[in-house]
Parts: sequence; structure tokens; C-alpha cells
Amino acid sequence: MPYQAPVRDYVFLLRDVLQLERYADLPAFADAAMDTVEAILEEAGRFTAEVLAPLNGVGDKQGCTWSPDFTVRTPAGFKEAYRQFVDAGWPALGSDPEFGGQGLPHVVNVAVSEMNSSANMAFAMYPGLTHGCYSAIHVGGTPEQKALYLPKLSSFQWAGTMNLTEPHCGTDLGLLRTKAVAQADGTYRISGQKIWISGGEQDLTENIVHLVLARIEGAPAGVRGISLFIVPKFLPDAGGDPGERNSVKCLGLEEKMGIHGNATCVISHEESVGFLIGEENQGLKLMFVMMNEARLGVGLQGIAQAEAAYQAAAEFAKERLQGRSLTGPKNPDGPADPIIVHPDVRRMLMDARAIVEGGRAFMAWTALHGDLSHAHPDEAVRQKGRDYMALMTPVVKAFLTDRGFQVCSDAMQVHGGSGFTEHFPVSQYLRDVRIALIYEGTNGVQALDLVGRKLAADGGRGVMSFFAELDAFVTGEVDPAMKPFTEGLAKAKGELQEATMWLMQNGLANPDNAGAASTDYLHLFGLTALAYMWALQARSALGKIAAGSADPFYETKLTVGRYYLERVLPETASRLAKLKTGSELLMKLPAEAF
Amino acid sequence: MPYQAPVRDYVFLLRDVLQLERYADLPAFADAAMDTVEAILEEAGRFTAEVLAPLNGVGDKQGCTWSPDFTVRTPAGFKEAYRQFVDAGWPALGSDPEFGGQGLPHVVNVAVSEMNSSANMAFAMYPGLTHGCYSAIHVGGTPEQKALYLPKLSSFQWAGTMNLTEPHCGTDLGLLRTKAVAQADGTYRISGQKIWISGGEQDLTENIVHLVLARIEGAPAGVRGISLFIVPKFLPDAGGDPGERNSVKCLGLEEKMGIHGNATCVISHEESVGFLIGEENQGLKLMFVMMNEARLGVGLQGIAQAEAAYQAAAEFAKERLQGRSLTGPKNPDGPADPIIVHPDVRRMLMDARAIVEGGRAFMAWTALHGDLSHAHPDEAVRQKGRDYMALMTPVVKAFLTDRGFQVCSDAMQVHGGSGFTEHFPVSQYLRDVRIALIYEGTNGVQALDLVGRKLAADGGRGVMSFFAELDAFVTGEVDPAMKPFTEGLAKAKGELQEATMWLMQNGLANPDNAGAASTDYLHLFGLTALAYMWALQARSALGKIAAGSADPFYETKLTVGRYYLERVLPETASRLAKLKTGSELLMKLPAEAF
Repeated sequence: MPYQAPVRDYVFLLRDVLQLERYADLPAFADAAMDTVEAILEEAGRFTAEVLAPLNGVGDKQGCTWSPDFTVRTPAGFKEAYRQFVDAGWPALGSDPEFGGQGLPHVVNVAVSEMNSSANMAFAMYPGLTHGCYSAIHVGGTPEQKALYLPKLSSFQWAGTMNLTEPHCGTDLGLLRTKAVAQADGTYRISGQKIWISGGEQDLTENIVHLVLARIEGAPAGVRGISLFIVPKFLPDAGGDPGERNSVKCLGLEEKMGIHGNATCVISHEESVGFLIGEENQGLKLMFVMMNEARLGVGLQGIAQAEAAYQAAAEFAKERLQGRSLTGPKNPDGPADPIIVHPDVRRMLMDARAIVEGGRAFMAWTALHGDLSHAHPDEAVRQKGRDYMALMTPVVKAFLTDRGFQVCSDAMQVHGGSGFTEHFPVSQYLRDVRIALIYEGTNGVQALDLVGRKLAADGGRGVMSFFAELDAFVTGEVDPAMKPFTEGLAKAKGELQEATMWLMQNGLANPDNAGAASTDYLHLFGLTALAYMWALQARSALGKIAAGSADPFYETKLTVGRYYLERVLPETASRLAKLKTGSELLMKLPAEAF
Repeated sequence: MPYQAPVRDYVFLLRDVLQLERYADLPAFADAAMDTVEAILEEAGRFTAEVLAPLNGVGDKQGCTWSPDFTVRTPAGFKEAYRQFVDAGWPALGSDPEFGGQGLPHVVNVAVSEMNSSANMAFAMYPGLTHGCYSAIHVGGTPEQKALYLPKLSSFQWAGTMNLTEPHCGTDLGLLRTKAVAQADGTYRISGQKIWISGGEQDLTENIVHLVLARIEGAPAGVRGISLFIVPKFLPDAGGDPGERNSVKCLGLEEKMGIHGNATCVISHEESVGFLIGEENQGLKLMFVMMNEARLGVGLQGIAQAEAAYQAAAEFAKERLQGRSLTGPKNPDGPADPIIVHPDVRRMLMDARAIVEGGRAFMAWTALHGDLSHAHPDEAVRQKGRDYMALMTPVVKAFLTDRGFQVCSDAMQVHGGSGFTEHFPVSQYLRDVRIALIYEGTNGVQALDLVGRKLAADGGRGVMSFFAELDAFVTGEVDPAMKPFTEGLAKAKGELQEATMWLMQNGLANPDNAGAASTDYLHLFGLTALAYMWALQARSALGKIAAGSADPFYETKLTVGRYYLERVLPETASRLAKLKTGSELLMKLPAEAF
């Protein structure tokens, strides 16, 4: 059975848990009535299962091909699938109607993006970055730039890329050397080499819009001297169509462990023509519009691959006959029982469910706050939305990819020896998802962003608001059936708060303490956030059951949720214990002892 | 810098921690004086670094090639390296002098095997399985079989394989269908298909000795009707040299995520000539001689790949300049600090050290008990050796490979984006090591073996003996510098004992409780065992320091050991909490809910 999109789970999340229809009065939500949304999800599920999923293995085996004329060929079928993708109007879902988009809330887009990414992560990355490029120009472009680029990016006729990394500079963008020289006509000439540019060259779109970080001649050193440029592969002509070929070239492709269907390019700028976007030396801020969106998209990839790997593992576990149940045969007429009867196989499948469904709720909940930060009339709600988006972005990115990788590895384990062979899809899921822990800022960088920047922002307003929300939820629940959920959540929140206090007391005195605690803190945060997501889902499920629903979906939700509390959440205690040990032993050895 | 063999660490383990020279009176240890052992390790280190390590990437990229004439070509350079390996006499290290071996204790062999496996896991698997085949024939063969096969296997002129798995039967060998038909001359004709046969065909050795599980016509169904056969690729002629070609054929190779340099074969037996080894229908017991040895060898692969990946990560972390230390520049004259200044990078490197050095000690300690089980004159010591070997085998196999995989993944993370590209070696380490969690019994099967079989064996004699040893160590320590080690060990042992009690009380009543607890229990066991290993190492290091040594090696040991206690061991509490939740929620959902 090929990948099946989790439409049912998203309908539950959007309709019952997040209750999108509460916001029907807001302009962005006007077209997001649940019947519309449901129809969109059904259709997206069909498209991903029928068009994108069958190309996933093809992309992995063929990879992309670079030619000495600097062109790149994507795997067989990608071009046609991309055309169908654009023709069906999928790309425009979340874009501004002024520029040809459909203007749906981003939370709906998250659902569709997860499906795309589950079905074919390497393919989904091509349009995935385009939306970020669209957003950066939407926020920072001049009216002329918007008019020129946004309709083409919104329809995904043109693709967008991020040109940040250089061979000697990844995380530390202050070291960036690519230079920009101002021309008399107001344009710039960009020169330098960029690496690891996803979709930096391809044969899917008629044009590619590179967003390039470079240093204008004479600009200050470090991060304060970095500007952002639009560098189109073909310079738009007077009519806005692709004109003269710009001197931006793909010099080659990286050999990688996974995402073979996506072209990871070495990009050379040799006096390529660039257009400044935003103000001089303010490029990083604008790039972070795209980067933050990309980070949420990477967290989504963690869940997306985990979902696909879980489905493959569950199917295998139900079909593979091997051994007998410890409590007596469950398939007495067959030669053996299906391996799903074994508790340790169940453990891996239930862990996967607990992470995937909890993580999906966390993505959607965060995306909804992002929508409200733009769309809500009440500034307090908008502010909370902005605070949460900032605070949760590193958690969504790092926690969901760390856990998604673990789920993919467990899914391989369920397959036994078959999982290690390339005849089954799970090796690809594991190899593909691994990059998600690294790119758009490694998970360690995310953890440092969380403890070093996000926690303290605006006097800790975001995290305090989150704690208050959790407290209100816990104290507001009176249904005895919710007790395991509120108790588990309250305990985790208490530990997270203790960790937060510890950081405040010890991280300022010695920043290495904050760094040493950062990854354990991020996981403690993620575990607590998912406890909240499971409590929210449990409340909705209990409500449905109380209202008379006999759909087993709701009882299953309660079971998986309680499993999360019993078998995943206990990890919080050891995370707290570890992070409170500080940095002394960690930093004690001299570098040469390694 | 290429892989460097951890000779210094092994000298410390064998000389100071395990004190091999205590056993100098025993025949097997007579030739294992520390100066001899040290010379062997130095030479093995040189050989692996110079001959095997340079072929590791070659093997990954080229893989093995199958031809329609049923031959298999190993990657370029493997054949010549194998010849050098045999000529240098490495294979014979641990084999019986009666059959051409050097008769050194297995614990010395472990050190050399780790080095081989770190340098080139795919290569090391060819001779790796040969020793297991040697052992099975050594234990169960007739004098004629021993005389015919052991000298060739001991010198590794011939290779050995394990033929267990069939397409429909892996873990559940009772389903096995390959059949054996008795012939008038006392031989058998074997027919059936075996899959996933590592080294099932290759061009390294003049002959291949397959040990094949098959069912003799008329034998009982299930595991009680399985016999073991020697099926040589070439039937030995009167002089014991390879004669007539047997009808065992390699029909193809698996495409796999890793260990590309090792040929994973589909093996077809079409009435191939086989020689019964051991008694009819008693084949599994004998196969488990080979299997248990292989399981320890797989645990070793986990540590071996982790060591190699750690070395690559440490080197990268010391060389890659990016960002500044949180506490002020450490490389003020350079453009940035090396990333080893960042606590979160340190965390990954220190975790790796804590697992690798603790795990290495655990392997060596277990292997020494194996040696004593054969060689010691006191039956009580021999019995304890046998008990420990049985009890620890699943822990060594599963705990060290689970943790080794995590170390390899962290090592990739230290590399950032570079780690995901195939220009750096760490992707191969991660892809290669992943099979170690699966083959020779998945880690879940190991966990079940531990809780279902090994704990209860002989009335729990093995585990009680281990607990008593830990208690005696803790109460016997008076050095105040040992306090953190004994306290941490005592706490972990208390939790492990509590978990063991819980299993006894709840696992019998409902076997699913044992299955549900098994993986957490195994990790709790492994964490406790490594706490003991770190305590033993700390005691030896403190002894050296007290005796006046200024070698920083010993202070480093104490730092890494204390790091293990503070930042790895706290996980025991959450493992205990999880396993005590039982199987109810785990087993609640019907199969169709997945």
C-alpha cells in the first residue's frame, strides 16, 4: 500500500482541536470553511499519493544530473509532476490574492505541505523554498519588485532559492565573502561562490530567483555589512518574462546521503546582475523572513518523513508472519502471527504515533498562531502570535526533526533485515530525513537560538505567556477523564519552568552553562509542548465521545495520548537532571585531548 | 588525519583495568604478556590504518559486482588487502594452536577486531564470520571435519558463512524450509534458497565453507527438526584441497543502505552436497555457537564505527572555524574560533567518548569472562564466565549498537552540512553501522532474549552474581575520590534491581509485560554495566595517579567517567519509569488501528 495522506487527522486537528471556524470572521479565514478545507485536503491527498509518491524512489535512485553546459536534469518524471503541481494551483494556496494567490491561512498550507513532503521530500523542496523567497520579497521588496516577482513566484512558474552558505562560512554568516559592486544604473554586480544551494539549478521552471547574501564594497565587516540581492537566472525583460541569461552558474552537484532527487548545487556568481532588496547592510534581517519560514518547513519534514516511515512499518508489521505472540497464537491457522503482536514492535509503532500526531498538532498550532499574528484584529492576539512564532520556531525545527529521525530509524527496525535493503522504502526515508537535523541551522544552533535569544526576548514575554496558558488549561479542566493529561502536563511544565529558572540563574553568570543545557532544554520544551498538544487533542476527543460519537478514531486518540504520557513524557526528568549539571565537566578537557 | 587505532586505550584496559597478567599462569594467557600484547596492538593499528582504512570509501562507492556466471567481485583493492591480512597472520590470533592458530585470549582478539572494523567494517565482515564458522566446527565437528576444515579456516585461506535466513523466515527459524535428503554415502543433498548471506560469494578466498541450516526429510516441524550442514563451495579433494564445484550458487546481491563492500548474497542450494555437523535435529544449538560469537562481534561493530566517527568529528571540530566562544574569543587572531569551543559540540564529543570508552571496556570485560570460562582451573570462575557470557551477549549486541548508531549520528551533526555529503566519511559510518542494530537478531530480539531467557536461566544465577559483584565493588571502595562513581553505580544498580523485581512479578503473570519492558530494561542494564566499567576505569586511573603518573591520559579518563555519570547515566530513571508502565496501553489498539 503506498503512502496515504493523513486527511482524517488533519480534519480533526483543524475542525475539532484548533477550531478554525472560530476565526471565520477574519479575512484570511473567510475562505477556510471546514467543508472547503476538507475538500482541499482530500484532493491534496489524492494528488500526493498518485503523482508525487510514485516518483520518490525514482528520484532517490536516479538523482539529478549535471552537465558541462551548467544545466541540471531532475529525475525522470519530476518535470511533468511539477507541471501538474503548478497547473492544479497547489502552490498558490497560501499566497496573497493580490499577487495571484488564494490567500488561505498558512495552517491549511501546512497540511498540504506535510503531504507533499511525505510523498516526495526531494520534490517538495523545490516549491518549498519558493514560498520562502516569495515571503521575503513580499515583506521587503519595493512595489516594483513585488509586481515583477510575486505573481511568478506565487504561481511557482518561477522558483526561489536561498544563497547563504560559502565554503568557509555556514552558521557564521559574518565571515561571508561574496561581494557586490554598485553600478551606475542602480544594480549590483555579485561575485563569489555559494555552496549547498538546494534547487540552485533545475529544469522544472522557466526561471530561478536566487536570493543572495553578499557584502557591498566598503560595507562593515561581520554580520552588519551583509545585504540581500535578487539575482534571477534570466533577467526579466520589459514584459516581465525571462530575458537575458545572467552569469550565475551551477558548477556541480553534491553527492549526498539522501534527498538525491533535489539538486544541491555549487553556485558561482561571476559578476552576476543583482538587485538590492531591502536596505543596504540589512540583508540578514530580511533573509530571516525566508529562513524562519524554512525552519518551520524543516520541522514539518521531520514529521512528514516520520509519518511515511510509520505507515510503511505498520503495513509491514501487519503482514510479516514471524513467531508467535507471547500470550498464545493470534493467527492460529497461519504458519505464524503477524509481528504486530509483539510488544516491542508495538512500542516502536506507538512511539511513532505519539510523536507524529503530537508533533503534527504542534506544527499546526504554531502555524495558526502565525496566521493570527497577521490576521487578528486584536493586537494582544497578534502579539502573542508573534511571540509564539519566534519562541516555537527552533523547537518545531529541532525537536520534530530529532524525533522524526528516531521514528524513521525505528520504522527501519520494525522491518528487520528488509529495512536495510533498498527494496523497501524506509531506508530512503531515513537517509532523506537526516538532512533535516542539519540544514537551515543545525539542531544545536536551534537550541542555542532558543536559550540564548528566544527565551529572553521582550523580558521573557513569550515563554511566560506560554506557561500561563498551560497553567490556565490545567486549572480549567474539571473532567476527571482529563486527569492523566493535566497531571502529566503540569509535571512537565513544572520541570520546564525549573529548567528555565536554572538557565536564568546560571546562564547569565556563565554563558557556557546555557550552551551546555541548550539541547536538553529544547527537548524538555518539545516534550512539554507535545504533552499540551495531547491534552488538547484528548479534550476534543472526549468532547466528541460525550456528544455520542462512536467513531473509534476518538478512542484511539485517547489511547495514543495516554501512551505519550506514560512512555514518552517520563524522559523530561532525565533531561532536567542532565541540564542542571552545568558546563564544568563538559568544557574541562583541553581541545588536544579530543 | 585518517583513522588512528586506540592502542593507548586498549593497553590501559588490558594492563591496568582487566590486569591480564593476573592470568599469566593459565595456558591461554601464557603468550599474552603485556609487552607482547602491546606489540600486537601497535602492529594491528598500523595495518588497519595503512591497509584497510584507505579502502573503506572505495568499498562504499564501488560495492560488489555480481556476474551471470554466479561469481562476485569485491571492490578494488580488497583482494590484495585480504592476501596481506592472511599473510601477516592476523586471522589466526585467537585460534587453537592445534589447528594452526596462535591461541591468544579472545580479549586480545577483540582489540584487533575493533580496529579492523573501525577501519573498514565491510572488509572486516569477511574474516569476521569465518572465525564463528571455525568455532562451530571446533565445538561440534567430528575429528575428521576438524582436521579437514579448521586449519584452512584458522588461517582464513577459506572463509566461513552462516546460511540461516530464508525469504519467509528470519527470526522465526522454525518456519525454515530448506531441505536435506540423506544419501547412501552418508552425505546429504541440500535444496532451498537462503537470503542475506554476508560474504556468501566473493573472490577473496579459494574456498567458502557455508554452514547451512536445513530440515532433514521426515524431521519434526518447527525448531526441533533443524540440522546443521557443512556445505563447501568446492568439495575438498582427497588431499583436502578445493576439488569439485558444489551446486551452491549466488543468484544475486542485495542493494543496501550501507556495507556496500560486503557481498550480501541470495544463495541457492540445488541439491548441493552437505555434511551433517553435530547430531540430527540439533542444528540450532550448534549454529548458536556461531551466532553468539557473531552477536558479540556485532556489538563490537557498534563501538568500532562510533570510534571512527568520533575521530572524524573531533578532527572536524578542532579545524572548522565558525563563530566565537560564548565566553569570548579563543582564537582571537583567526577569523573565528574552532567549533570545539561550543558547549553543544562538546556535548556530542563527550557523549561519544563516554559511550565508546565505556562500551569498549564492557566488550573487553565480557570477552575476558569468555576466556576464563574456558581457561580457568576453578570451576566456579568458569561457571561465572559462562553465566556472564550468556547474560551479557544480548546487552553487548543491542546496547552498544543502539548507542553506536547515536554516536555516529551525533558525529554527523558535528560536521554540519559537510556530514551529509559523501565527501566526508561520516555518512558511510552512519549507513554502515545501521545494519548492526538489525542483523544476528534485531535489537528487539536481543531484549526479549535478555528478559525472556537470560535473566531466568539457572534460577537467575547470572544476574544475581552480577548484582553481588556490583555490591561488593561499591562497599569495598574507600577512596573518597571514587565516591561519585560508587554512588552513581549504586543508584543505577538499585534501579536495575527494582526493574528486575518488577519483571519477575509482572512478566510471569503476563508475558506481554516482559516484552513491553524489554528494550527499556536492556538499556537500563547497559547503562548500569557501563557505570561499572567507568568505575573500574576510574579506580585504575586513580591508582596510576596516586602512584605518581603525570600522564594526562588518566585525568582525562576521570573527567570522561564523571561526565558519563552526570550526563549519560541519569537516563536510568526514565527507563525505569517507562518499563514499569506495563503492556496495557501498548497492546490496547486493534491491529487495524495502525
